[in-house]
This record gives sequence, structure tokens and C-alpha cells, in this order.
Amino acid sequence: MRVHRERAESALEAVLPPAAMAPQRLHEAMRYAVLGGGKRVRPLLAYAAGEAAGADPARVDQVAVALELIHVYSLVHDDLPCMDDDVLRRGRATVHVAFDEPTALLVGDSLQSLAFQVLAQRPLADAPESQLGMLLTLARASGSRGMAGGQAVDLHSQGRSLSLAELEFMHIHKTGALIGAAVSLGGACGRLEQAQMDGMAHFARFIGLAFQVVDDVLDATASTETLGKTAGKDAAHDKPTYVSVLGVSGARAFADELLADALGGLEVLGERGLRLAQLGRFIVSRTS
Amino acid sequence: MRVHRERAESALEAVLPPAAMAPQRLHEAMRYAVLGGGKRVRPLLAYAAGEAAGADPARVDQVAVALELIHVYSLVHDDLPCMDDDVLRRGRATVHVAFDEPTALLVGDSLQSLAFQVLAQRPLADAPESQLGMLLTLARASGSRGMAGGQAVDLHSQGRSLSLAELEFMHIHKTGALIGAAVSLGGACGRLEQAQMDGMAHFARFIGLAFQVVDDVLDATASTETLGKTAGKDAAHDKPTYVSVLGVSGARAFADELLADALGGLEVLGERGLRLAQLGRFIVSRTS
Repeated sequence: MRVHRERAESALEAVLPPAAMAPQRLHEAMRYAVLGGGKRVRPLLAYAAGEAAGADPARVDQVAVALELIHVYSLVHDDLPCMDDDVLRRGRATVHVAFDEPTALLVGDSLQSLAFQVLAQRPLADAPESQLGMLLTLARASGSRGMAGGQAVDLHSQGRSLSLAELEFMHIHKTGALIGAAVSLGGACGRLEQAQMDGMAHFARFIGLAFQVVDDVLDATASTETLGKTAGKDAAHDKPTYVSVLGVSGARAFADELLADALGGLEVLGERGLRLAQLGRFIVSRTS
Repeated sequence: MRVHRERAESALEAVLPPAAMAPQRLHEAMRYAVLGGGKRVRPLLAYAAGEAAGADPARVDQVAVALELIHVYSLVHDDLPCMDDDVLRRGRATVHVAFDEPTALLVGDSLQSLAFQVLAQRPLADAPESQLGMLLTLARASGSRGMAGGQAVDLHSQGRSLSLAELEFMHIHKTGALIGAAVSLGGACGRLEQAQMDGMAHFARFIGLAFQVVDDVLDATASTETLGKTAGKDAAHDKPTYVSVLGVSGARAFADELLADALGGLEVLGERGLRLAQLGRFIVSRTS
């Protein structure tokens, strides 16, 4: 995991325009947003899926970068005053606090464009048709039927109580779409049989939901210092979460169930799925 | 032009998710933003360039849609309170006024994703490698070294006086990048020789700048009613423009010079460039 994280950091560093290049303030803010730490869960999933598919890691680097750029753009926009109005992210001031609000808006917009640029600018699959399919997967996972759509549902759920099914719908879009894309794009850099792809998609679906359940538990139980972002926000904003629906220990048990379901999908991969399984366990047992 | 505008409207209508599809409010707002009129200059340029390249208009439809989605996303974000804080666009309330601010933010984000989705989801070029190149062109034209970068420069120019060269740098990015992409992507749906592509790129460079000069003239001389957006904003915000640097008649003369330069680039196309020339004249003589 450390090796993969370092690969992702170097690849992100290489893809971001230098701060000295005009427009300097925008580029400085983009680098601040992206290079400020983070668990890099989506890149890690892409590398693990790439390994399972026997992919060239140099290809997976580009996929890892594209995924993380989309993720960071969503964080920057999510922290804006008109959304969550948050001042702390990854242990530092959010972009609109460290710079200003219009710059944060343009940082998010530019990071999204850059993600698609990175997926298009070098050969990443054996056939260029497959690479077009990768771009399509990322675009769908990011848009109104994916991540951004999940955020729209989230917006209108504050102060309401949701059923478990409604919560799942929201998170399958908000977090699950991009986690699924990470596994699918990492795998697309190499070669997999249909049954293996299906197994990995199954893993991604359940681990994406488990990721969110654990996020909700940590928001309710960990400190702001440990998380590097404001803790206790869900309760403060009266947001429906897995903790508000199931309680802390119920949510933990649910995360364990989801992990077991996720790991079942990897059986078809045999030994090749070990890294993904390891990551799945890390996602559920993490403390920040 | 009427036929091409109607094609663009139908294609946009077909690509946008129905308002009845979840998340409904987001989809309703996306449709409100995109289907609310507009000159559709970028789609028109793409169709004209496609004609010059002998392209299948069904391919150009998709390119026209992608370009307009990027343009509209930039308008929606540009109108937000933290940017231009405008209430009127295309003769109607801006998205954050008709809906709300977080929805407007997510509308822009989702339209950008949808633009890349549209460029990836069907074959649009003779070779899939060329289509990857089209995606790359759109991503570069949209990002920090294109449109979003131009907006970042614009942000920091308010209240300052810029030289003609600095104004050009800003507009070549802010407006010119996407106008250039419109011509280049329309052409890429068909076949052109290198000299013809170069000629069309020359046309796009000069007509993109002419478009902005005319925009500045209209902001200073036309009424809010005619424009469908707030007139006189540049002077009110103390923004450097071609009118503030050259005066109204100086700016008009400059636009005519740029048009002549632009048309020069089309000579290599002969008869095939007639539609582009016609559009160029329309862009410079328009009154709204």
C-alpha cells in the first residue's frame, strides 16, 4: 500500500501544472487541494484491481490520478459555503479558506477537466475502443447519475429521516459510483475474463457501501484531530446516516456484513484477488 | 443556421436526462440551464466546420452537444454569487435564482461530466484514436490552461488596467479556447488535409477574439432587454475590456480587422469554407 500511495503521489505531482505556470494562483490552489495528503483510497483500489488484471502499473498511474482528481474536485466543491461550509480538510484549511471562494470553484472545475485530459492523453488499454469505454465509465460515475447526483440527493435529505433503502440509494451514487469506477478502470488497464470483471464489480459495490458506513461511524465516534476534517458534522447538520438509522454498534456490524459480501466477489479471482481483499479489510477497519 | 440550431436543440434535448428521472430536481435544473435558449454559437461553428470536412452530421450533433454543455456549465458557475452574482441569463432567472445555489453548483459539475460522456459514448471519428484526441482537445480547452484558466485571470483583472496584450491573453483562454475546440472537433468528425486544418485553426483563433471584442461592445452599447443578460456589467465592475482600452468605435474597427484576418484562414478551403465565413460575419455583425 505504501508503494502504491507513493506511485499515486508522484503521478499526481507530475500531472498537475506547475505553480509557476499562468494562471499561477489557480495552479497553486489546484496543487494545494490535491497534494495535501488524503488516504488515496480510489488510487489504491485501482492499483489493486490493476494487479489482479496483470496491468502495466504505468497505465494504472494515469487511472489513479484521474480518479483522485475527480474525488478531490468533489471535496473542494462540497466544502464551499453554499454546500457544507467547512473550514478543515485533510488537517488543513479548505481551499476557499486558504485562497478564496471563486478560486475554489475554478479549482474544482479545472480538476474535473484535468481528470478527463489524463485519461485521454496516453494509451491506457490494449485497444483505443476500450479506452473510450474507460472515459465513459468515469464520466458516468462522476455525473448526475453518479457522484454529483448522490450529492444532490444528500442536499435534500438534511433534516429528513431516510429509510435504509433510501440511504443506500444516496450512497451507491455519492461514494459507490467512483469506488466502482476505481476497480473497473484499474482492471481495464489489463485483461480479465467476464466472470472476473463481474466478481470485481460485486466487490466494488459492497465495499463502496461499507466505506460509507465506516465514514458515518467515524464521523460520530472519532475526533476532528484524528480525522483531519470536522467530526460530528452529520449530527450537527441533522443528516440521516447509518449511525442515525442503526446506531454505532449496528452500523459496525453492518459494515462487517458488507465486507464479507464484498470478499465473496473476489473468490473467482483466486490468488490474484488478495490485494483487493487486503484493501477491503483496511477500508472497514480504518480509524480515520 | 436555422437548421443547424434545430439539430443542436434536438440533440441537447435527447442527451439531457429526463426531469422525471432521479435526482429529479437536479435534472430539472440541468434542463432549465441548457434548454433555455442561447445563440448556440459553438454548435453552429462545429456544424460549419463539419460541413467543410464532409462529416456525417449525426456525428457533429454529439460534438455540438458536448461543446454547448461545457459552455452552459461555465455560464451557470459564472453567474453564482461568489463570481459575477448575476440574476439574468438568456432572458430568464439564472439557475441559482430559479433553483438554489448548491443545485446550481451541481448543475455545472454534472453538465461538465455529461459533455465528456457524450464525446465518449458513440463512435464519432473514423478511428477511435482520433476520438481520444477529440476528448483530449475538449478537456484541454475547458481546463486551467483553457476556459477555466481564462476565468481565473478575469477574476484578478477587475479594477486593474490591462494592456491590449494582457486582454488578449485572457480572452484567448476564456472564450477562444472553446471556440477553437468547436471548429477543431467539428472538423475531426470528417476528413481534412493538414493545410485545411491549419486554415480552420487560424480562422478559429481570430474569430474567437472577434467574438469577445463584439461582446464587449454590446455590453457597453446594447440594452439588457436585447441581450437577455445584464448589460453594462463591465463598466459597473470596473473590468478592463476592449471598449475600455480602445473605445467603442476603436473596438468595432478592431473586430472588423480580426474578421478579415479570420476569413484569410479559410481561403485554403475554397467553396467548402463558405459556411464558416458566413458564420464569421454573423458573429461580428450580431446585435445580441
